[in-house]
Amino acid sequence: MSSLPGRDAAAAAGLPEDPQALAELTARVMYENDAASKALGARIESVGPGASAMTMTVRPDMLNGHKTCHGGFIFALADSTFAFACNARNAVTVASGASIDFLAPAYEGDVLTATACESALAGRTGLYDVEVVNQEGKRIALFRGRSYRIKGQVVGA
Amino acid sequence: MSSLPGRDAAAAAGLPEDPQALAELTARVMYENDAASKALGARIESVGPGASAMTMTVRPDMLNGHKTCHGGFIFALADSTFAFACNARNAVTVASGASIDFLAPAYEGDVLTATACESALAGRTGLYDVEVVNQEGKRIALFRGRSYRIKGQVVGA
Amino acid sequence: MSSLPGRDAAAAAGLPEDPQALAELTARVMYENDAASKALGARIESVGPGASAMTMTVRPDMLNGHKTCHGGFIFALADSTFAFACNARNAVTVASGASIDFLAPAYEGDVLTATACESALAGRTGLYDVEVVNQEGKRIALFRGRSYRIKGQVVGA
Amino acid sequence: MSSLPGRDAAAAAGLPEDPQALAELTARVMYENDAASKALGARIESVGPGASAMTMTVRPDMLNGHKTCHGGFIFALADSTFAFACNARNAVTVASGASIDFLAPAYEGDVLTATACESALAGRTGLYDVEVVNQEGKRIALFRGRSYRIKGQVVGA
Repeated sequence: MSSLPGRDAAAAAGLPEDPQALAELTARVMYENDAASKALGARIESVGPGASAMTMTVRPDMLNGHKTCHGGFIFALADSTFAFACNARNAVTVASGASIDFLAPAYEGDVLTATACESALAGRTGLYDVEVVNQEGKRIALFRGRSYRIKGQVVGA
Repeated sequence: MSSLPGRDAAAAAGLPEDPQALAELTARVMYENDAASKALGARIESVGPGASAMTMTVRPDMLNGHKTCHGGFIFALADSTFAFACNARNAVTVASGASIDFLAPAYEGDVLTATACESALAGRTGLYDVEVVNQEGKRIALFRGRSYRIKGQVVGA
Repeated sequence: MSSLPGRDAAAAAGLPEDPQALAELTARVMYENDAASKALGARIESVGPGASAMTMTVRPDMLNGHKTCHGGFIFALADSTFAFACNARNAVTVASGASIDFLAPAYEGDVLTATACESALAGRTGLYDVEVVNQEGKRIALFRGRSYRIKGQVVGA
Repeated sequence: MSSLPGRDAAAAAGLPEDPQALAELTARVMYENDAASKALGARIESVGPGASAMTMTVRPDMLNGHKTCHGGFIFALADSTFAFACNARNAVTVASGASIDFLAPAYEGDVLTATACESALAGRTGLYDVEVVNQEGKRIALFRGRSYRIKGQVVGA
C-alpha cells in the first residue's frame, strides 16, 4: 500500500484518513461529475477501497434489434462500477482495457447489479473483476478491467 | 461459405442473392429495430458481408468525471459496428464476448468512426476486429469481438 | 445439467455415475494421453466436475531472457488445468480462447499451483477462471478460458 | 518516438543507431539468453522495430490428449514472437497480459509461423498483434499482447 498516494495526500489536503470514508467522498465527487453514469441511470449502491456496486435498469432505448439489452450498455454499467472501484483511493485511475463475456441476455425492465472487486494491484496497474447479475441473481456478464493510475487526485487535487 | 445459410435462405425468401445487396438490406432492417444504436447517435457508413463502418459524435452525456468519453460508449459504438458486420449475411448472430484496449481518450464533439472486419469465421463462431479512430484518424481503441450464430434470419425469418 | 451428456452416457457405457468418480476417471485417462502436460511436468492435484488443480515446477528450460518463467509456460499450466476442469464431465471440450494477466514473475525452482473453477456453463460453451500462485501463495497470473463442447466422450467413446 | 530511450541510449553505448540493426542485435542477444524459446524449438525468421516473425515445428511432446497441439505451446510461440517485437528497440519490455483465440487445431509435424506487429505504442505501454499460421497458410490462432516497458536495456545495459 505504500506506493499509493491516497492516504498521505488525503491527510495533507484535510481529506478523511479513513479509507472507507475517503472512498465514499471520492465516489460522491466523481459521480457528481460523471454525466455518462447519470445518463445511463446507473446508481452507486456501495463503494469501498477497491470495490463498488452499482445498479441500472434496462430502458427501451438500451435495446438492440434482438430486443435484448445492447452489450454496450451492459459493458458501460460494468465499466462505471470498475471506475468507482479503482478510483476509490482518490488517486486518478483510468481504464487501459477490459474484456467482457456475455452469459445471458438482459431484457427491458431488468434491474442489473454490477459488483466490482480488486483482483490485483501493483504499482500503477490493477485488475478488477466485475460480475453483472439481474434482479433474480442470474449472471448476465463477467467483466475484467485493467486500470492504470495517472497523476492527480479525484478530490482535493 | 457452404455452412452459411444466408444465400440459400435469401433465395428461398425472395431476398437478394447478391451478398452486398443482402448485407445492405439486413443492415437497414436491423438498424430500424435497433433503439440502442439510434440512441447513441451511431450511423452506418457502410456495410458488406462481414464488414461495416459506423460513426458517432461524442456528446456531453457520454463524458465521465475525467471529461473524456466514458469507455462504455466507445465500446458500444464498436459493439454495434461488430453486430452489423456479423449479421450482414442475414443469419442471426449474437456477441458472446469482446475485449477492448483504450489507446487514447476521446473528447466532447469528437466524431468517432468504427470499422469492423471479419478476422475468422468457422461453423457458428466468428472473430471480428474493430478499430475506432477520431476525426483526425487517431486510434482511440481496438476491439475484438467473438460472435455466435444462433437460429433464425434477420430479414425474412 | 440436463444438456450435458456426461451422466447418461456414463451409465450407458458402464462408467461411474457419480460425478466425482467420473471426473477422476476422465482425468486419469486424459492425462495418460496428454504428452504436453507430462512434458511440462504438470501434475494433477485434484479434479472434480468443472474444477481441477495442477502443479508445475519452473525449470531452467522454461526461463526467458529476463531469467523469469516464460509467459507461455505459465499459460500452458493454466491451460492444462482449464482443460482438465472443462472435460471433467467426460464430454470432449476444447478451448476456443483465453486471456491471461501476468501479475508477478515466477523464477526457477518456483512451484506453481493453478486452480480452475467453472464460472459459467450454458449449452456448448463455458467460462473457466484459473488462478496461478507460487509456493508462497503469491498470485502469479489470472487466466480466463472459454470452452466449447464438441462431439464425443473422453472415456468410453 | 521521442519517449523511447532506444536510439539515444544506443548511441551512448556504442550500439547501432540504425533501428533495424539495433533490432537485429537486440534479438540476437535476447535469443542467446532465452532458454525457453530454444527449448520450444522456436527460431527467429525476421525482426525489426516493433515486429518479428518466428517459426516452430509441433513436436510429439507438444500434443494434448486430443492429439492436437496443446494451446499452451501455440501461445508460447506467439508470446515469444511478441517479446522479440516489443524489445526490438532495446528497451526492456515485459508482457502484462495477452489474449488468444484458437481458430483451428495444429497437428504433429506442422510448421507454425507467428508474425507480430505493433498495433499501438504510447508511453510505457504497447499493444501487439500476432497471427499464427501453419505451413499451408491456414490461420491457427490470433494473439493480442500488452507490453509494459520497465527500466533497463536488453543490450549494453
